[in-house]
Amino acid sequence: MLNIQNSVDRIRELVAENNIESLKTELNGYHSADLADIFPDLGTSERIECFNLIDEDKSVELLEYLPPQLQVEILGDIDAVKASELISKLPHDDAADVLGELEDDESAEYLEKLPQKFSSEVRELLKYDESTAGGIMTPLVLTVNADMDVEGVLSTIRIKAEKENMDLYYVYVVDSQNHLVGVLSLRNLLTSPIHKNIKDIMQKDIVKLHIDDYQDYIADVFMKYQFNALPVVDMYNHLKGIVTWDDAQDIVEEETTDEIYTSSGIIVDLAGDDEDILSGNIFNSIKARTPWLFITLVGEFIAVTVANHFTATVDALPIIAVFMPLLAGLGGNIGTQSITLMVRGLSTGQITLRSQFKQIARESAVGLLIGVFFGFIVAVVTMGWQHNIAFGIIVGVAMALNMMIAAIIGAMTPFILKRLKIDPAVASGPVIATSIDVIGLFVYFSLVTFYLIKIMAS
Amino acid sequence: MLNIQNSVDRIRELVAENNIESLKTELNGYHSADLADIFPDLGTSERIECFNLIDEDKSVELLEYLPPQLQVEILGDIDAVKASELISKLPHDDAADVLGELEDDESAEYLEKLPQKFSSEVRELLKYDESTAGGIMTPLVLTVNADMDVEGVLSTIRIKAEKENMDLYYVYVVDSQNHLVGVLSLRNLLTSPIHKNIKDIMQKDIVKLHIDDYQDYIADVFMKYQFNALPVVDMYNHLKGIVTWDDAQDIVEEETTDEIYTSSGIIVDLAGDDEDILSGNIFNSIKARTPWLFITLVGEFIAVTVANHFTATVDALPIIAVFMPLLAGLGGNIGTQSITLMVRGLSTGQITLRSQFKQIARESAVGLLIGVFFGFIVAVVTMGWQHNIAFGIIVGVAMALNMMIAAIIGAMTPFILKRLKIDPAVASGPVIATSIDVIGLFVYFSLVTFYLIKIMAS
Repeated sequence: MLNIQNSVDRIRELVAENNIESLKTELNGYHSADLADIFPDLGTSERIECFNLIDEDKSVELLEYLPPQLQVEILGDIDAVKASELISKLPHDDAADVLGELEDDESAEYLEKLPQKFSSEVRELLKYDESTAGGIMTPLVLTVNADMDVEGVLSTIRIKAEKENMDLYYVYVVDSQNHLVGVLSLRNLLTSPIHKNIKDIMQKDIVKLHIDDYQDYIADVFMKYQFNALPVVDMYNHLKGIVTWDDAQDIVEEETTDEIYTSSGIIVDLAGDDEDILSGNIFNSIKARTPWLFITLVGEFIAVTVANHFTATVDALPIIAVFMPLLAGLGGNIGTQSITLMVRGLSTGQITLRSQFKQIARESAVGLLIGVFFGFIVAVVTMGWQHNIAFGIIVGVAMALNMMIAAIIGAMTPFILKRLKIDPAVASGPVIATSIDVIGLFVYFSLVTFYLIKIMAS
Repeated sequence: MLNIQNSVDRIRELVAENNIESLKTELNGYHSADLADIFPDLGTSERIECFNLIDEDKSVELLEYLPPQLQVEILGDIDAVKASELISKLPHDDAADVLGELEDDESAEYLEKLPQKFSSEVRELLKYDESTAGGIMTPLVLTVNADMDVEGVLSTIRIKAEKENMDLYYVYVVDSQNHLVGVLSLRNLLTSPIHKNIKDIMQKDIVKLHIDDYQDYIADVFMKYQFNALPVVDMYNHLKGIVTWDDAQDIVEEETTDEIYTSSGIIVDLAGDDEDILSGNIFNSIKARTPWLFITLVGEFIAVTVANHFTATVDALPIIAVFMPLLAGLGGNIGTQSITLMVRGLSTGQITLRSQFKQIARESAVGLLIGVFFGFIVAVVTMGWQHNIAFGIIVGVAMALNMMIAAIIGAMTPFILKRLKIDPAVASGPVIATSIDVIGLFVYFSLVTFYLIKIMAS
């Protein structure tokens, strides 16, 4: 792939030199997906100047690849007539997304300038929630009749697909009331005898989406069945549109981002979407991040209360307190590993609820083995450093117990959440760190108080 | 989608009742992707019994959807002749994957039983590293000549695609030495006039993969350009095969899993692959998890050394030590949020190196605002609890500083790693937790020692 930085530098130089002809050649030489990587790195005025030099077909493609904020920025800055022309050339779903990003009055203005048919089709899409199949689909579908033959379908494609700029993955078969009755892959069509009847070659078992299906479900269906496109129907099985795999890929990426953010205690929904956490109003970002920090605060106050019960011990031997970060740090670390493995495994399907005991047992064994290993190192180092054999042994034993307990908690938590029908990813990071602080410190201080102090007293 | 648990229960019941006819009907009623979700939850003998009842076409599809261990298990348990027959019906890339999972002598045995042509094509694939384009591609590509017309290509498709069971997304145009010279989408083909020459309608700017390209690069190319399939060429531009989007989807999922594991300090490569961490030899899992735990150990010993410098302070006022988990916990938590946002943003392209200062400034502001808010709460609670105003203020100030520093370190680390050409995800969890323990405790103890002890002395 391209070295973006070099291209950006070259383009900015040409802009600075005002070398329009070379700039135009340079820009139109890139694939539109490359331009979409370059554009965010240009300044606002450079961006508009460059955009105006790109051929129309390529600039439509470029718009499709750009993130929503840049789409809106560019369309707002270029000539209004050109902007509506470009919008009208976007696929319906992308046009609806762009218009959805605008303020209501701006979007109404554009909708009026757009061709009648396109405008009403896009208006239809804007009615649906943008995270449902209705909001994601494109309404342009090539439909045929079950009584047609292969030759008839091929000539329908030739006429319709060309004119309407349709995506073409499957041909959908509908009855006279637009009920979805069958599906036909292009492969199927191209390899069947020319006079064969469609109803004899079409697939009647159809994997389909409902217009209200949410995007996490849609992502799951695409990941599972691996279709190029899926038809979308309403409650009466009327065909309303298709969702294509490139939209699904974007959804899968967004869902994965949500899963990762959720794991670290960021509640994406409170900010709007994941873009809003990285840019825009800073208070949206704070809103999304505070709740789990607050729960951590409560949890850590519990840890402090636990430690507070042992002030007499700390008083007797201050070095004991000094070792707390070591125990909490390593416990938190191995616990995070365990919970990360379980959460991701459940999400990809590599782990199922059925295998929970096997997985928990495995993590316990891993925790025990690693714990004993690290406990041994810590014991030896501590003995050498503090010249105190008993203390070394107790820190080592506490470390081993702590790491094993952390691995077990890390392995169990996602399964428990899943059984309670809570997303296993929820705040897995903060939860594990806090519970290890509470439990790990309790184990450590108990050991110290009941054994070490006794040994020292005797 | 399906409720897997219900289906599994029903199927196990039919197996137990030995109700072969109903079982057969039940099984063949599912989509093969559904069967692939059901099969892992059956017992080994149930699995074989069920597999043998599934129609041949569906059982080939089912094999394609199943994870490697189950493919190998099933093929080993069913009749050997049937097994080689099924393998020979798999797409080449899947067949190569299955054979790659077997022991060398077993795989050689199967290869001998397979049809000559298929066997030599699969042998060819087995030569490539399985994480490169050569190992992932399927060698079956529909190629045509630039001098043919649309009609000629359509009849070539009719003959070849049917016979060879090819995936059909694009038609590739090659010269007489099999050099890739153009590409043609089916859509293009179906909407062009029937006597048009291929060289006039083919796309000559071709996005392609090199046979040695690694899967992380392949995933990036697919995510960026969103093609259905990409051609694979060798160093002389000879067309060797295609990688299809469903393979790419699997790679993207695997790469994301790697990114998530890497963030929590698990080095996937040391175990083999991500499957090996969840199952198989437990020592592979331990190998992958230990190195970063060890680095954490070293880091936490540094934190302990820092705290150890302040034993006199702890001695004077043991409650100071008791509050350490609170500071480390919340600092670690907000730092993890920041680093998670940056790492994921860099990975999806929502953040670029160019925007680093903006992002770091934003995270600093978030850290400061959240820090002040939590510092205030902590100060008030601590004052009320410990009846010590000065101590409350110092804990509160330390908390605010600590959270802001944590957010800044979390935001900066990924950019620094990226500049050093190190994967920003590397151990982001352990790194942030450990550095907060070291720096946060130093800030806290310094504040306490220089102000609190002085106040108390005065």
